[in-house]
Amino acid sequence: MAGSTLGHLFCTTTFGESHGPAIGAVVDGCPPGLELSAQDLQIDLDRRRPGTSRHVTQRQEPDQVEILSGVYQGKTTGTPIALLIRNTDQRSQDYGNILDTFRPGHADYTYQQKYGIRDPRGGGRSSARLTAPVVAAAGIAKKWLKEHYGIEFVGYMSQLGDLAIPFEDMAHIPHNPFFAPNQTMIPELEDYMDQLRKQGDSCGAKITVTATGMPVGLGAPLFDKLDADIAYAMMGINAVKGVEIGSGFASVSERGSFHGDNLTPEGFTSNHAGGVLGGISTGQDLVVSIAIKPTSSILTFKDSIDATGNPVQVQTKGRHDPCVGIRATPIAEAMLALVVMDHVLLHRAQCADVRSATPVIAAQNPQTL
Amino acid sequence: MAGSTLGHLFCTTTFGESHGPAIGAVVDGCPPGLELSAQDLQIDLDRRRPGTSRHVTQRQEPDQVEILSGVYQGKTTGTPIALLIRNTDQRSQDYGNILDTFRPGHADYTYQQKYGIRDPRGGGRSSARLTAPVVAAAGIAKKWLKEHYGIEFVGYMSQLGDLAIPFEDMAHIPHNPFFAPNQTMIPELEDYMDQLRKQGDSCGAKITVTATGMPVGLGAPLFDKLDADIAYAMMGINAVKGVEIGSGFASVSERGSFHGDNLTPEGFTSNHAGGVLGGISTGQDLVVSIAIKPTSSILTFKDSIDATGNPVQVQTKGRHDPCVGIRATPIAEAMLALVVMDHVLLHRAQCADVRSATPVIAAQNPQTL
Amino acid sequence: MAGSTLGHLFCTTTFGESHGPAIGAVVDGCPPGLELSAQDLQIDLDRRRPGTSRHVTQRQEPDQVEILSGVYQGKTTGTPIALLIRNTDQRSQDYGNILDTFRPGHADYTYQQKYGIRDPRGGGRSSARLTAPVVAAAGIAKKWLKEHYGIEFVGYMSQLGDLAIPFEDMAHIPHNPFFAPNQTMIPELEDYMDQLRKQGDSCGAKITVTATGMPVGLGAPLFDKLDADIAYAMMGINAVKGVEIGSGFASVSERGSFHGDNLTPEGFTSNHAGGVLGGISTGQDLVVSIAIKPTSSILTFKDSIDATGNPVQVQTKGRHDPCVGIRATPIAEAMLALVVMDHVLLHRAQCADVRSATPVIAAQNPQTL
Amino acid sequence: MAGSTLGHLFCTTTFGESHGPAIGAVVDGCPPGLELSAQDLQIDLDRRRPGTSRHVTQRQEPDQVEILSGVYQGKTTGTPIALLIRNTDQRSQDYGNILDTFRPGHADYTYQQKYGIRDPRGGGRSSARLTAPVVAAAGIAKKWLKEHYGIEFVGYMSQLGDLAIPFEDMAHIPHNPFFAPNQTMIPELEDYMDQLRKQGDSCGAKITVTATGMPVGLGAPLFDKLDADIAYAMMGINAVKGVEIGSGFASVSERGSFHGDNLTPEGFTSNHAGGVLGGISTGQDLVVSIAIKPTSSILTFKDSIDATGNPVQVQTKGRHDPCVGIRATPIAEAMLALVVMDHVLLHRAQCADVRSATPVIAAQNPQTL
Repeated sequence: MAGSTLGHLFCTTTFGESHGPAIGAVVDGCPPGLELSAQDLQIDLDRRRPGTSRHVTQRQEPDQVEILSGVYQGKTTGTPIALLIRNTDQRSQDYGNILDTFRPGHADYTYQQKYGIRDPRGGGRSSARLTAPVVAAAGIAKKWLKEHYGIEFVGYMSQLGDLAIPFEDMAHIPHNPFFAPNQTMIPELEDYMDQLRKQGDSCGAKITVTATGMPVGLGAPLFDKLDADIAYAMMGINAVKGVEIGSGFASVSERGSFHGDNLTPEGFTSNHAGGVLGGISTGQDLVVSIAIKPTSSILTFKDSIDATGNPVQVQTKGRHDPCVGIRATPIAEAMLALVVMDHVLLHRAQCADVRSATPVIAAQNPQTL
Repeated sequence: MAGSTLGHLFCTTTFGESHGPAIGAVVDGCPPGLELSAQDLQIDLDRRRPGTSRHVTQRQEPDQVEILSGVYQGKTTGTPIALLIRNTDQRSQDYGNILDTFRPGHADYTYQQKYGIRDPRGGGRSSARLTAPVVAAAGIAKKWLKEHYGIEFVGYMSQLGDLAIPFEDMAHIPHNPFFAPNQTMIPELEDYMDQLRKQGDSCGAKITVTATGMPVGLGAPLFDKLDADIAYAMMGINAVKGVEIGSGFASVSERGSFHGDNLTPEGFTSNHAGGVLGGISTGQDLVVSIAIKPTSSILTFKDSIDATGNPVQVQTKGRHDPCVGIRATPIAEAMLALVVMDHVLLHRAQCADVRSATPVIAAQNPQTL
Repeated sequence: MAGSTLGHLFCTTTFGESHGPAIGAVVDGCPPGLELSAQDLQIDLDRRRPGTSRHVTQRQEPDQVEILSGVYQGKTTGTPIALLIRNTDQRSQDYGNILDTFRPGHADYTYQQKYGIRDPRGGGRSSARLTAPVVAAAGIAKKWLKEHYGIEFVGYMSQLGDLAIPFEDMAHIPHNPFFAPNQTMIPELEDYMDQLRKQGDSCGAKITVTATGMPVGLGAPLFDKLDADIAYAMMGINAVKGVEIGSGFASVSERGSFHGDNLTPEGFTSNHAGGVLGGISTGQDLVVSIAIKPTSSILTFKDSIDATGNPVQVQTKGRHDPCVGIRATPIAEAMLALVVMDHVLLHRAQCADVRSATPVIAAQNPQTL
Repeated sequence: MAGSTLGHLFCTTTFGESHGPAIGAVVDGCPPGLELSAQDLQIDLDRRRPGTSRHVTQRQEPDQVEILSGVYQGKTTGTPIALLIRNTDQRSQDYGNILDTFRPGHADYTYQQKYGIRDPRGGGRSSARLTAPVVAAAGIAKKWLKEHYGIEFVGYMSQLGDLAIPFEDMAHIPHNPFFAPNQTMIPELEDYMDQLRKQGDSCGAKITVTATGMPVGLGAPLFDKLDADIAYAMMGINAVKGVEIGSGFASVSERGSFHGDNLTPEGFTSNHAGGVLGGISTGQDLVVSIAIKPTSSILTFKDSIDATGNPVQVQTKGRHDPCVGIRATPIAEAMLALVVMDHVLLHRAQCADVRSATPVIAAQNPQTL
């Protein structure tokens, strides 16, 4: 309720500041009996880690996660799982100039006004670094969901700045620094980023995340709809300014005769709904897109004010991502996984007796909840 | 927690089905001492009411709200305010054909699969009719926020199907059946809708909602960010498939040098952020846009299956809105008001001692929380 | 969250004031498919109803409950179940003298100080009348728990004022106006109450509630322990000043060699724990006792102050229970049922995969969760 | 929601097992600007620490707390405060015999049945060691409440086994190993405990906790009553089997003419209510008593079963408290502080506008909320 906890039954509470001694999360509500090790969580942490290509920040954060509780002899016990990540690479001097000025596009001003005090080092609590514990926590959900229901999460970049990225094949995603489902366009994307860096500017990105192997029936209307909780989680990611489910904003200009996905004994014939109808999963893939704004930390000078309200010129030096969206794919996957996990537990609570074992469209959700 | 409650401290719990005896809401957490009558809530209920023009459903639902508790001698007492709206115009026969078939684009299939049972009359719980109690509940928040902080909410239609609606003046909104901030374009919009009705088809719409007089400092990061809770609430409205804050998806192709709103001693020089930075309000107007999909209830025949999985052709007769977006503006305003109200209370709880009475940019939030 | 909702997954939100137009509750989270009618809920409402003997208040409140939603063709649909009870017998003039004075032992003073306003008619929100919606809501839980797991709830009076009531047989409970599990002592109890009424005074009572057919494994430590949630719910009943689980305060002077319940292949050999160890149910009967203070509304004059702080003498006329404990048994059963129901759902969410189908002590929990 | 979080707005989420690498808590919702250091929290941690006298366990646990986040330059920032306590003195071999047997009176059986797996080392999650993070977290609340409202918490032992401890003076509490408000009786208490240890047995205790300087108006009826949340928190302490507010169970045999506390312009003339009426604080001292059962870990042999259900004889060696109640006083104070802190924030949210600055009985709550 105090704002740092995500989830109703699978609850992730994060803590920490960018340059404090440590960041981490407490994951409460994980079912017992899941085989779990720190290495399971390290996989996605490494995917979001900085310094992996010239197109992202060169900060070196190993982001080694330590499991402090909730696991006994390699298995979860049903008790809270505490995850700890010690901060290592803190060059606070990089951020000297933000101690007494408000960086445009950043949360400096709002945190200062809300709390009357803020930890300015590296953006403190509002730093994108705080997505690391979320990614670690989601690693637990991802493993459990895959083992129990075969649900998996795949995200990719669908647009970089002005460049739309045509979908070619999921197989390409791990083989380029952009998480792009595209091979032919990579050189163009790299030139684009090199240009941007030279200019000391930044750009935004559009990320699309999907969940496959989804069961039908997840979602708790009217308010805790599956897509509502997804929108909430996605908007909770730093720099996200928009969320779409399925057709999203394109549905505004679609006709009802086209948009409504037809049903057949073999399943739906299209997925404009993005896998959700009336706030409840249809058994089709979830398809979610998010808009990520351009990085606010740039070398270009911008107008701002200092802590006393006097006008200043701000230039943000330091080692920043020219496009935070490049590292956002594993984070968006993580958020989607946490929401789906939460709703699987919510569904088991209220509807465990419902025979979703024999759905009308058997093909689309073989597994039962 | 069970899905029908919105808000952390200003909690709206709704109940009811489209054709049941009644629908309503319990609003818990309203501060005491607010002068309140049913008439205060009727204003917005009438704005969303059907049958007000030929472009919306011709159902006649007076939607008279009754206050059952929480008000004594015309003032709120701090106890739960129960709102009751009796259902009157129920022609269940209109919906006969949906008893044993799943309407494409509707929640029939997902509700049946989740619960193993559903009230099919008028869409039951998944009917847009259930937005009425939300609008009534938000009337309480709107009145309190206006009296205490001068916060007001104005929404309008920014796109109807393929037609973008240029912003002319807020003053036009009440004077046309579309809530359009535009006068010159109304005839075109009316022709567009007449065409659509003749075709027995439907279209989507884009609605933009704003909050003015916003204080700085609302929002509870990391997860219960103001924009995250807004996205959650908006996606909870029937037929919404996308949510944007400020520049939204346009920010993807913007440069950091452009997107970041500059600060000056007189305030921000632009509002690409839509009034939120780091999940906390900046004191600027909140600007939120939502995508509403085309109505799924259309006269055009579509492929579907019946309860036993056999293929059928579905045509949805009855009195439907050819564009549910036309009546969505007061609903979107309501959701925004409920979220802002909730965050004002959350802020008072944790930060009542913070001197937001003397903000750095005094001009932008004269009032204190 | 705003204080009027009980439960994590099976959520009961109550509303209403003693002399307002109506009182009621919204029950959210009830599993679908339960056969339910208003009559099912009327049974316990009639057990707590006033005017059933000369030993309780002579107010006539039929307390007819109406189901407004969540039930279709006689079965729950999984959507919120709204329960409405219209207030009928309101003689506000009986309470004229409490409009501007604070009755000792009542909530008049604290409500006035907290909210700056209060509905004084019949005690407003703080009236024991508000236990009626709780009893109605619990009727749903009781029916579901009995049908699914054979869990049943039986409460009785174990002490009336100074008179301890020896346990004879559960069978006696329905056959006397005190819910006493005792036949021989009834005349003595009746004389005791007649005396008290003549004196215009009141007394307290101790109520014991049990749950039989309990499965092992209910409870969500560390904080949402089964016994912690029970204590919370019981202390939420008007006039309750103490809660005990099992041996309760007697355990203070017990030795560990005696108190710890031995285990055998046939089960536990005693139940000093009251059915809970480490916050989790053992599979034995739950045994909970509560202390109910003497009715504060009495004819004896007491010192108090008026709204402006001046000393006054207060005598509470009107039709009051000389011992509110006499009608408290069905209320205590209701609270226990709501908590157990909630924890059954919580357990299904997190531990549905655990083989509690084959417990170590099969005899004690044949059913699986 | 998953059971390991206490509080609505001041949220304490604990994690850890007795013999895992670490235990700790995340405190979310603390107001910004509070001067805070680890030393502030160490004071109460040392009061509950084992090994401080011959009457408690001789385990050596320094319980050094580390603050990982939420504090910048010595002040709280309003972000989550993570508290870490590394486990040091773990002689798991002491507990060898409980790996495959269920100790009577312990949570071994229920945890195994609920989760199908448990960490048996030192009782794992169900160990009283987990009260340390609660005490640390409460240190934050205690400091804030004292500085802002002058609210303070004092607890003491009111009964040890069969020996009632007459109240002499609060001043005696820190000067004996029992937290007894009594000087003359200490030798008797020491002999009593020495006897018990020789017998290899254990006893229970009754602890009374008070809060002074309470404002009027705390509590959120109908369900989140101040006393209901107190009962919930107290029952969450290991080994607690009963909770009383004010007169508690004594009120059962009291008369209404006696129990109801009279009001005068100078305040209440007695405090049988224990500082709560209708679930809301009266401005008098809170008075709460709890019953703690005898330690279940004793040298006496008891009947039990092993993991496969076969009968065994269990003797619990190791270094145990012959009366866990002796160290429970700081823990009970901590729980009370956490609940009061939470309700202060809840009250500020809903009733910040109420003029509790000018209460009817000014003497009793000088401060405003």
